[in-house]
Amino acid sequence: MNGTLFGIGVGPGDPELLTLKAIKTIADCDILTVPDSGTDNHIAFDIANEYVGTKPIIHLDLPMTRDKSKLMEKRMIAADMICVELDAGKNVGFLTIGDPMLYSTYSYLHTIIVSRGYTAKVIPGITSFCAAAAALGQPLCESDEALHIIPALYDAQVALNLDGTKVFMKSGKKLNDVIDILKEKKVKAKMAQRVGMDGEQLFDDLDKNVESDYFSIIIVKD
Amino acid sequence: MNGTLFGIGVGPGDPELLTLKAIKTIADCDILTVPDSGTDNHIAFDIANEYVGTKPIIHLDLPMTRDKSKLMEKRMIAADMICVELDAGKNVGFLTIGDPMLYSTYSYLHTIIVSRGYTAKVIPGITSFCAAAAALGQPLCESDEALHIIPALYDAQVALNLDGTKVFMKSGKKLNDVIDILKEKKVKAKMAQRVGMDGEQLFDDLDKNVESDYFSIIIVKD
Repeated sequence: MNGTLFGIGVGPGDPELLTLKAIKTIADCDILTVPDSGTDNHIAFDIANEYVGTKPIIHLDLPMTRDKSKLMEKRMIAADMICVELDAGKNVGFLTIGDPMLYSTYSYLHTIIVSRGYTAKVIPGITSFCAAAAALGQPLCESDEALHIIPALYDAQVALNLDGTKVFMKSGKKLNDVIDILKEKKVKAKMAQRVGMDGEQLFDDLDKNVESDYFSIIIVKD
Repeated sequence: MNGTLFGIGVGPGDPELLTLKAIKTIADCDILTVPDSGTDNHIAFDIANEYVGTKPIIHLDLPMTRDKSKLMEKRMIAADMICVELDAGKNVGFLTIGDPMLYSTYSYLHTIIVSRGYTAKVIPGITSFCAAAAALGQPLCESDEALHIIPALYDAQVALNLDGTKVFMKSGKKLNDVIDILKEKKVKAKMAQRVGMDGEQLFDDLDKNVESDYFSIIIVKD
């Protein structure tokens, strides 16, 4: 019988934000995979470090690049490597920061693996924006308010016109453009950086000379 | 010294989706509060049942009503009851389904308690839409796609024109109107109901005669 692929969300950074299900699933996996992305390598592993133990690890070459054909090629190779293990009846775990279905390389592999007829299961994780809202003590949405999660590559001007709470995230350097727009428009915003990690910083406004990084989350409440 | 209020997210339904931090925080609280809402009472407690033990419990009368002045009055009374305990140096836990900063009664109490000068901390929880996406195997967003969380009371016609993934949730009966609109416009959608609870149902499309309930999540991917 083929093994199962598990996409395991380990949450935003604080190891205590792993769920019981994530910990149990890691324990049940025969092999874990590490995506080597060139940057931010192995953070998901560092978060789950205590529960990984001495399990065999496969390194997957999954660079962050805008070259779509290269991306697709690398994903197919990674999927091939996972399928070899699934064919051998092994359960394979793919650890991912935050939630596997939100801006995660895992979601691409999930789709490929399922399309090949294998079973893949997802263990949801705490999202970075929920952790940011918690750390800032900032409610995200109430009653009939909408919540818009906006990656920094999206048009911030368009996003700011949306009715509801806006969360800007991802693509660290590009977030500085968002900060500039928010300052220019005098839009009130809060920011959390590296929540639950070393170097966590919280900002109740963007008045100071703040600089974003990959782990910055900006919350704009209507 | 005053105690601290903890808003504790217990996730969407599966007790294994509690985080280690939620479990530890429940253990560290002297008293837990139960919101009596008239409907869906105590679900957060049922989810966390195993970890609640024999801690003293305060019932808070927090009915679901559209009467805003009544809502505010009831919330103030609930806050008063919590402050009595905080003044006595007790740590008070407020368990909430999903995440405390997303459509939760907790977020109102948090704001009131903090405005009175007390300390309140939030333990984030797994959101229902992440659990729904996981159960459906449906990636929510990738790369530069936005994600829009739309409560059913929001204008669905407007929401459907947004660029990105749409998640419709909350307000069970009203979601049936959303389903009607999606069917009429022949918009592809997936639905999850009561994920991780008794009676979980997953729908890969809305072709069947589906009926929503309070725990239904509809995902529309662009």
